[in-house]
Amino acid sequence: MMRLYEMPDSGNCYKVRLILTQLGQDFERIHTDILKKESRTADFLKKNPNGRVPLLEIEENVFLPESNAILWYLAEGSQFVPEDRLGRAQVLQWMFFEQYSHEPYIATSRFWITLLNAEEEYKEEIEKRKAQGYAALDVMESHLSHQEFFVGNRYSIADIALYAYTHVAHEGRFDLTGFPQIKKWLKRIQGQANHIKIDD
Amino acid sequence: MMRLYEMPDSGNCYKVRLILTQLGQDFERIHTDILKKESRTADFLKKNPNGRVPLLEIEENVFLPESNAILWYLAEGSQFVPEDRLGRAQVLQWMFFEQYSHEPYIATSRFWITLLNAEEEYKEEIEKRKAQGYAALDVMESHLSHQEFFVGNRYSIADIALYAYTHVAHEGRFDLTGFPQIKKWLKRIQGQANHIKIDD
Repeated sequence: MMRLYEMPDSGNCYKVRLILTQLGQDFERIHTDILKKESRTADFLKKNPNGRVPLLEIEENVFLPESNAILWYLAEGSQFVPEDRLGRAQVLQWMFFEQYSHEPYIATSRFWITLLNAEEEYKEEIEKRKAQGYAALDVMESHLSHQEFFVGNRYSIADIALYAYTHVAHEGRFDLTGFPQIKKWLKRIQGQANHIKIDD
Repeated sequence: MMRLYEMPDSGNCYKVRLILTQLGQDFERIHTDILKKESRTADFLKKNPNGRVPLLEIEENVFLPESNAILWYLAEGSQFVPEDRLGRAQVLQWMFFEQYSHEPYIATSRFWITLLNAEEEYKEEIEKRKAQGYAALDVMESHLSHQEFFVGNRYSIADIALYAYTHVAHEGRFDLTGFPQIKKWLKRIQGQANHIKIDD
């Protein structure tokens, strides 16, 4: 059985649990607390030298890190990845957008505020990230104003990647009031078959 | 003919020119100066709402942003992307590593120092990025100590993605003296058929 090294609160880890569940794939969850530096032990670094979760153990001693690479590995060939060349590249486009232009602002603020409980200490850093976090939400809002999902008008791993931290953006003090298209899209994702919550 | 909106000094843009050249694909270069905010004009934002280069115009009015998604689009089905499922996911793993754990430190420092010529102004930000830039180089050095290329012992778009900013890391004041495996790998990349330089 596949093993998922993960921290339950992490949106990046949640992405992987969500696709595994929607694919009907059994897996074992191995709790790895990054606040206790459990992803930086000598033993963990042998599994992933970059010291991060999620980490998927596909089979004994075959490890794959990076949440969006794991999504691709698991979903390729399924209904959650488009069949056409441009559609596949657009799924990747939105997944790279998520990791470069969205996660470092929205997820990082949530991490400091909600997981570390250190809003005061990181006040300046959180403030600095506001504009770029909202810029990412603006790009999403505009894209969703003319389509229901991110790629090819069909639910895909691009939606899963962007849903993970967008639906908990308020925990990083991002206000979605001015983003009606995003709010409708969040509901659309929650309505997909076999959807699970981040704390399930 | 495909059109590439790009800024010649940008490593992200260079990646795309390199793969296009190695695939023998003709393309038109459209110089887009981000220092003059040419990627933030109303006209450009219609092409890419995220306001960044590189941007590939695949055919009239079909635009694909995100350097690594463009690499995938162009190279899928060629010798530069592995055929096996795990190999493909590992290529993506290293491309996500590049955009999340490497580029924000190594490329950003180079941008401030070499492109903006503002090392003094960004001194504190550059200093903050040192440890994480070197951590990314450590991960690469360790991986290359037991294989010649990043995935499947064969030159792939994962190597192209990581080469783009690693070979100019010194321009961001990263010293590769302690990274002999990376230095050998850089030479190996430079020795590939139809290699071009960043300023070609």
